[in-house]
Amino acid sequence: MSTKKVMRAGILGATGTVGQRFICLLSSNPRFEIHVLGASDRSAGRPYSQATNWKLSDRLPENVASMIVKSCNPSEFEGCDLIFSGLDASVATEIEKSFMEGNFPVFSNAKNYRMFDTVPLVIPTANPEHFAVIGQQRKEFNLNRGYIITNSNCSVTGIAVVLKALQLTFGKISKVMVTTMQAISGAGYPGVASLDIMDNVVPHIGGEEEKIEQELGKILGSASTDNTSILSDDQLKVSAMCNRVAVIDGHTSSVSIEFASGQKPSIQEIKTCLSEYRCMAQQLGCHSAPKQAIIVHENQDRPQPRLDRMNENGMAVSIGRIRECPILDFKFTILVHNTILGAAGASMLNAELASEMGLI
Amino acid sequence: MSTKKVMRAGILGATGTVGQRFICLLSSNPRFEIHVLGASDRSAGRPYSQATNWKLSDRLPENVASMIVKSCNPSEFEGCDLIFSGLDASVATEIEKSFMEGNFPVFSNAKNYRMFDTVPLVIPTANPEHFAVIGQQRKEFNLNRGYIITNSNCSVTGIAVVLKALQLTFGKISKVMVTTMQAISGAGYPGVASLDIMDNVVPHIGGEEEKIEQELGKILGSASTDNTSILSDDQLKVSAMCNRVAVIDGHTSSVSIEFASGQKPSIQEIKTCLSEYRCMAQQLGCHSAPKQAIIVHENQDRPQPRLDRMNENGMAVSIGRIRECPILDFKFTILVHNTILGAAGASMLNAELASEMGLI
Amino acid sequence: MSTKKVMRAGILGATGTVGQRFICLLSSNPRFEIHVLGASDRSAGRPYSQATNWKLSDRLPENVASMIVKSCNPSEFEGCDLIFSGLDASVATEIEKSFMEGNFPVFSNAKNYRMFDTVPLVIPTANPEHFAVIGQQRKEFNLNRGYIITNSNCSVTGIAVVLKALQLTFGKISKVMVTTMQAISGAGYPGVASLDIMDNVVPHIGGEEEKIEQELGKILGSASTDNTSILSDDQLKVSAMCNRVAVIDGHTSSVSIEFASGQKPSIQEIKTCLSEYRCMAQQLGCHSAPKQAIIVHENQDRPQPRLDRMNENGMAVSIGRIRECPILDFKFTILVHNTILGAAGASMLNAELASEMGLI
Amino acid sequence: MSTKKVMRAGILGATGTVGQRFICLLSSNPRFEIHVLGASDRSAGRPYSQATNWKLSDRLPENVASMIVKSCNPSEFEGCDLIFSGLDASVATEIEKSFMEGNFPVFSNAKNYRMFDTVPLVIPTANPEHFAVIGQQRKEFNLNRGYIITNSNCSVTGIAVVLKALQLTFGKISKVMVTTMQAISGAGYPGVASLDIMDNVVPHIGGEEEKIEQELGKILGSASTDNTSILSDDQLKVSAMCNRVAVIDGHTSSVSIEFASGQKPSIQEIKTCLSEYRCMAQQLGCHSAPKQAIIVHENQDRPQPRLDRMNENGMAVSIGRIRECPILDFKFTILVHNTILGAAGASMLNAELASEMGLI
Repeated sequence: MSTKKVMRAGILGATGTVGQRFICLLSSNPRFEIHVLGASDRSAGRPYSQATNWKLSDRLPENVASMIVKSCNPSEFEGCDLIFSGLDASVATEIEKSFMEGNFPVFSNAKNYRMFDTVPLVIPTANPEHFAVIGQQRKEFNLNRGYIITNSNCSVTGIAVVLKALQLTFGKISKVMVTTMQAISGAGYPGVASLDIMDNVVPHIGGEEEKIEQELGKILGSASTDNTSILSDDQLKVSAMCNRVAVIDGHTSSVSIEFASGQKPSIQEIKTCLSEYRCMAQQLGCHSAPKQAIIVHENQDRPQPRLDRMNENGMAVSIGRIRECPILDFKFTILVHNTILGAAGASMLNAELASEMGLI
Repeated sequence: MSTKKVMRAGILGATGTVGQRFICLLSSNPRFEIHVLGASDRSAGRPYSQATNWKLSDRLPENVASMIVKSCNPSEFEGCDLIFSGLDASVATEIEKSFMEGNFPVFSNAKNYRMFDTVPLVIPTANPEHFAVIGQQRKEFNLNRGYIITNSNCSVTGIAVVLKALQLTFGKISKVMVTTMQAISGAGYPGVASLDIMDNVVPHIGGEEEKIEQELGKILGSASTDNTSILSDDQLKVSAMCNRVAVIDGHTSSVSIEFASGQKPSIQEIKTCLSEYRCMAQQLGCHSAPKQAIIVHENQDRPQPRLDRMNENGMAVSIGRIRECPILDFKFTILVHNTILGAAGASMLNAELASEMGLI
Repeated sequence: MSTKKVMRAGILGATGTVGQRFICLLSSNPRFEIHVLGASDRSAGRPYSQATNWKLSDRLPENVASMIVKSCNPSEFEGCDLIFSGLDASVATEIEKSFMEGNFPVFSNAKNYRMFDTVPLVIPTANPEHFAVIGQQRKEFNLNRGYIITNSNCSVTGIAVVLKALQLTFGKISKVMVTTMQAISGAGYPGVASLDIMDNVVPHIGGEEEKIEQELGKILGSASTDNTSILSDDQLKVSAMCNRVAVIDGHTSSVSIEFASGQKPSIQEIKTCLSEYRCMAQQLGCHSAPKQAIIVHENQDRPQPRLDRMNENGMAVSIGRIRECPILDFKFTILVHNTILGAAGASMLNAELASEMGLI
Repeated sequence: MSTKKVMRAGILGATGTVGQRFICLLSSNPRFEIHVLGASDRSAGRPYSQATNWKLSDRLPENVASMIVKSCNPSEFEGCDLIFSGLDASVATEIEKSFMEGNFPVFSNAKNYRMFDTVPLVIPTANPEHFAVIGQQRKEFNLNRGYIITNSNCSVTGIAVVLKALQLTFGKISKVMVTTMQAISGAGYPGVASLDIMDNVVPHIGGEEEKIEQELGKILGSASTDNTSILSDDQLKVSAMCNRVAVIDGHTSSVSIEFASGQKPSIQEIKTCLSEYRCMAQQLGCHSAPKQAIIVHENQDRPQPRLDRMNENGMAVSIGRIRECPILDFKFTILVHNTILGAAGASMLNAELASEMGLI
C-alpha cells in the first residue's frame, strides 16, 4: 500500500456529525490526506476548531484543528482527488451536483441521489459491483472524471450486508420484517433532545422506514445487463418499524426473513454462509476493509451495541440469535455502527474500492 | 362502593419489586386493606421498612412500614379474605398451592400455574370470562373457597388487550410478529446491572419469548363449553423477539398482525374499535378499571413510555402508529406499564372482578 | 378554602417547559383557574395543544388543550386576577414590565428582575416576609395593584430553604460551598442535547454559578427597616460549582457550610431544627404548602432524585447525610424538584401567600 | 524498548472487572506477557472465556480466551516475574501476603495494604519516589525479591496527580474540598443496579470518602529520611462528598483547594505548572506513560467523561475550569479514567517503573 499515491480529499459538511467522523477516519487512513474542509458560509474563513463543536471521543487531530474552513464551492477544492460529502439533505442536491459537474468523484452520505437510476447506492461490503453504472452516469452529464456514489441510510446498512451474503448462497429473499432500535448519533448534533430519550423510547424516526423499504431493494438489486441503470429487486417486500432508543452509537435490529425459493437452509448453513462471506473490499486488500465482514455471535445475549459496535473498527456487521421464525423463515438480531459502516466509513471504503477499480 | 365490605388482603413476596407495587396500589384502593405481609424466612419477624429496600418513587405508607413481616405460611394469614402473590417463580409452586389448599383465593403474578388448564390466565381488561373454570379448579382440589387466578407476563399484556378488542370485532387473528423493548423494572431488583444497559440494548430476556408465544394463545382462547378448561387459540402463530432497553418502567412493542379471515378492516375501523372498546371491569364499575382501556394515539411519535405509561394510573394500554404492513395486514406500536397493568395492577383488578362476580 | 374566591390566572410563556408545569399545577389547584394562555406571536391564535410540544408525563388537561393561545399583550389578559410568567429571559424584561404597569400582580420565574431592590426574590417556604417591599415597588411605578414578585433560580432553592431554617435557629451562615448535580429539565426543551449528557457529566451551566452566588445572599437577607428595599446578606460567602447530570428532574447538591457565630450546634440539634421548621405558608394554610417543608433523611444513601423529588408533590426540600465537615462546620446533601419548588410551584405558592396577605 | 526482556505476568482476580482491564492493557503492552490467570476456586480449571463474563468493549484477546484459569496459589504462578492483583478486598489480605512471601513483586489494586507504613501507595504519575520503602518492607519479611506495591482508590487518583504537581511548584496544600461524581464501573460487575442509577444520583459510596481523606495525605506525603516508612502529610485537611452518577467510565470531581503558604499563584501560573508537569515515568521512557500527564482544558464546559476519559489511553488526568474560589483559593474540575489510571493502568505503569528502577 505504501507505494500507492496518497489521495487528496475534500470534505463537504465538515463541521457536522458525519463530517467529524470523516475527519477522524481519514486522519488515520494511509490512502487519504485531508486537503480541504468545506462547510456553510457561516463557518467559512474560520479555523476548523472554532467552526465546529467537536463531539467525538477521539480527539480532533491537531493539524486539522488549524485548517481554515472553506465554503462548499468547487473552486475552493482545487487539487482534490475526490470529495466526501456529509452534507445535510437540505443543501446536498445543489452542492453535490456542482462538484460532480466540476469533475470530482463525490462519495456522498446524503440521501438526495441515492435512488437515481445511474447513481450507485453502495455499501462497500455488500454491492460494490453497482459501480458499473458510473460510465452511464458520466455519459449523461458528459463528464470524464466526475460522478456521485452514495452510501445507504445507516439503519439499512447492517441488514443489507447480511441479506446480500445470504442471497449469494441461498437465492433471493422475498420478505423482510425489521424493527430497529436506533442510536441518537444517527440524528446528528444537537439532534435528539435529552428530554425525549432518557428513560424513553421514541417509536418514530421521520422518513426512516421509507428509506429502509426503498433502499434495501436497490442494494439487493443488480445493474442492468448493459450497465445503464440499477434495477431494484422488485420481488422483495420490506416492512420496517423504526424506534429511537437511549444508545449513543450502534443501530440494533430485530429482523425476520423469508427466502423466495420456499426452501430453507439449516441454521448451521446460514451461520457458515455468513461467517465465510468474503467481499470484494477484502479481496482487493483495501485498507479499511474489515477482516471479517460479518461476525456471527453464539452467545444468546449478543450482539449488544456498547460491546460490539467497534468490532473491526466499526466496519463489521454483527449478527446473533439466529433461529427459526414461527411466521417467516428465520429471525435474528443485527448490529451496525451507524456512523462508521453506516455512514462515513462506508463512503471511505467506497472510495478505496473506486480507487482500486481505477475510478479515481 | 363505600357501602361494600373492605376486604383484608395478604401479600406473598411483599418485599420484592412486585410486592412493593402491590403495597403501593392496595394502600390507595378503598376495596382492600393490607392485613398480612409475607416474605422469606430471612425477612420474617422484622418491620417491613427494615425488611425491604423500597425502590418506588411513591413513598412507603407509614402504617405499612411498621408492620411485622410474616413467613409465607397459611397459618400466618388467618383472617385474610384473599391473597396477592408476588412470589418468585423459584418458590411459588409450593407456597401458592398451600394457600389455595388452605382455601384462600390467590391472585398470582408468578408464572408457575399460568398454563394449567383449570387455572385462569387473566388480564382483567381482556379476558375475565376465563374465571369460568374456577368451579372446575375447586372441584379438582375439593375446595369450597380457594383457587388460583394468574395474570400474564408483563410483555404479553399490552398486545393481548389490543388483540382481544380486535378479535371481538373483526374475528380471529392468525399471525402476530412482535419485537419488544422492555423496561428494566421487569427484571426486579437488583435485576439488570447498570453496566449491561446504559448506552446499550440487550437482545435477549430469558424465557420471555416463549412466554409471549404460549400465553397469548391461552388469553385469546376461551373456556370449553362445559367450563372445565381453557382452550388455547391453536390457530394463532406468534413470533416474539425480546429486547431490554434503558427505560425504567413501560414495555414498548412494535407489532404486526394478520387477521384469520383474510379480510382487512380499514384503519379507521380499527381505531374506532379500539377507542370504543369497553371491558367487563368498566361495566361492573370496578374501582381500578381504567376509564379508557385502550388509548389510541394520533401523534406519530407516540406512545412513549416516559410520557404515556401512567395513563389511567398505569391501567390503560396505549397504541399508536396504526398503519398497513407490507407483509402482514397491520402494524402499530403498543405500550403497557409493566409493573401495573402488566403485574400487580392486573392481580388487583382481577380481585375486584372476582369480588363483583361473587368469587371472594 | 372552598368559600374563597377562585382567582383567574394568566400564564405568560405558556408553551415552554415552565409554562407547561404552570398549567399542570394550576389545573389541580382549587384557588386558581386558567383564564388566558400567552405565548409568542408564532403560537398566538392556535389551540394550545397544537402550539405546544407537551413533554410532561401528566396529561395535558382537556379543557386547556382547546384554549386559543394569545400574544403576551396585557390587553389580551383582561379579567385576569394575576399573571404567572414562565417567559424566557430574552423577552421577559419588556413583557413583564408591561403587565406590571398594566396593574397585574406578576409572579415571575424569569431571572430579569430578581436582583432589583424593590422586587421580592422569594422562595415561598423560605422568605415570604420579603413581600414587604411591594408597597415601595408600587410607589415607584405609581401603581395601585400591579407588581412583580420573582422566585429564585432552581439550583439555589433547596439550599436557601435549608439555610433559612438554620439561620433562624442558629444565626447567620458565613460560608457556603456547593457543588450541584442538576437535572436536564432545568434547561427547558429541547435544552440539553442527548449526545451531551448520556454517559456524561457537563461541568458547566452558563450563568448558574453567578446566580447562586448572588441570589442566595438576597434570599437570606432582609427588608430594610422602612421596607423600601431588600438588603442582601453581605457577610455570606458563597462558592458554587455547577454540573449537569443525566437526571430528568431534581437538582442534587453536595453542600458544606460554616456558621458565622463560630459556635457549632450538634448534628442532632440541626436535624431537629430542620424537621421542626414551619413556614408561613403552612401557618396560613395555603393549599400548595408542603406538610413538611424540609424532610430529613436518615438513610445514608438518600435523598435521591428519582425516589425523593416528588415528596410533598415536589414542594418539599429533602436533606440527608448531615455530618461534620473537616474544613467548614457541616456538610450534607440537598435535593429539590427543580421545576416545581424550584420554578412553577414556587410562583404558585407565592401567589397563594400574596392572596392570603391581601396583596391580590 | 525492544531489546528489553519481556516480563511474565500473573493476574490475581483475573475474572473480575479490574482483572479484565488488566488483561486488556497487558495484552497490548510490549513489556509484559500474560503467563498465569488466577481466580476463585469456582473459576479454576475452566478456560478463561467461560470463567468470566467479559464486559469491556475491547474484545477479549483470543490467546487469553483459551487459557485455563488457576487458583490463586503461589505454586500455580511459577515462572511469573511479577503479579498484578485485582482481588476483591474480602480475600486480598491473605492471598496477596502469600504471594509477597512467595517472593513475587505484587502490584495491587486492592485497598488492604494501602495504609501500611512500608507499603508504597503509588500513583505512577504522582509519587513513584515512595518505592524507596521497598527495602524496609523486604527486610521486615526477610525477602530478597517479593514486596507489595499498591495503587490508590480510583476517586483519589486524579486529585492526587494535580495536587502533587501544584505542591512541587507552589508548596504544600492545606485544604481540599472535593465532591465526586463517580462512574458505575467503579463498583465492578454486576455492581450498581440499573434501577439505582438511571435518572438518578446516589449521594453515597460506602467507604469512599474515608479512602479519599486518608489516601490523599499518604500520597502527598514523603518517605522518612531513612526510607523506613511513608509519612503522611498531616497538615492536609480533606473533606470529600462522593456521589454515583449515570456515567460508564470516568470519575469527575469538583475540587476547591487552599495553599498552606497563604500565597496564591496566578491562574496562569497554575495552568503553566500543570501543563509543564513532567513525571518520572515520562523521564524514564516507560511504555505506558502518558505524553502529557495533566491536560489543561480551556473550554469552559470541559473536561467531560465521555469525551475526555480516554485521553492518552486513559493515563492522563484532565483538568478544566480553573478559577478563583470565594472561600478557599482555587477551584476546578478534574477527570480521571477510573479503571485505567485509577486502577489497572496505575498498577501496570507502577510495574514498568519498578522494572526501570531495578526492582523486578
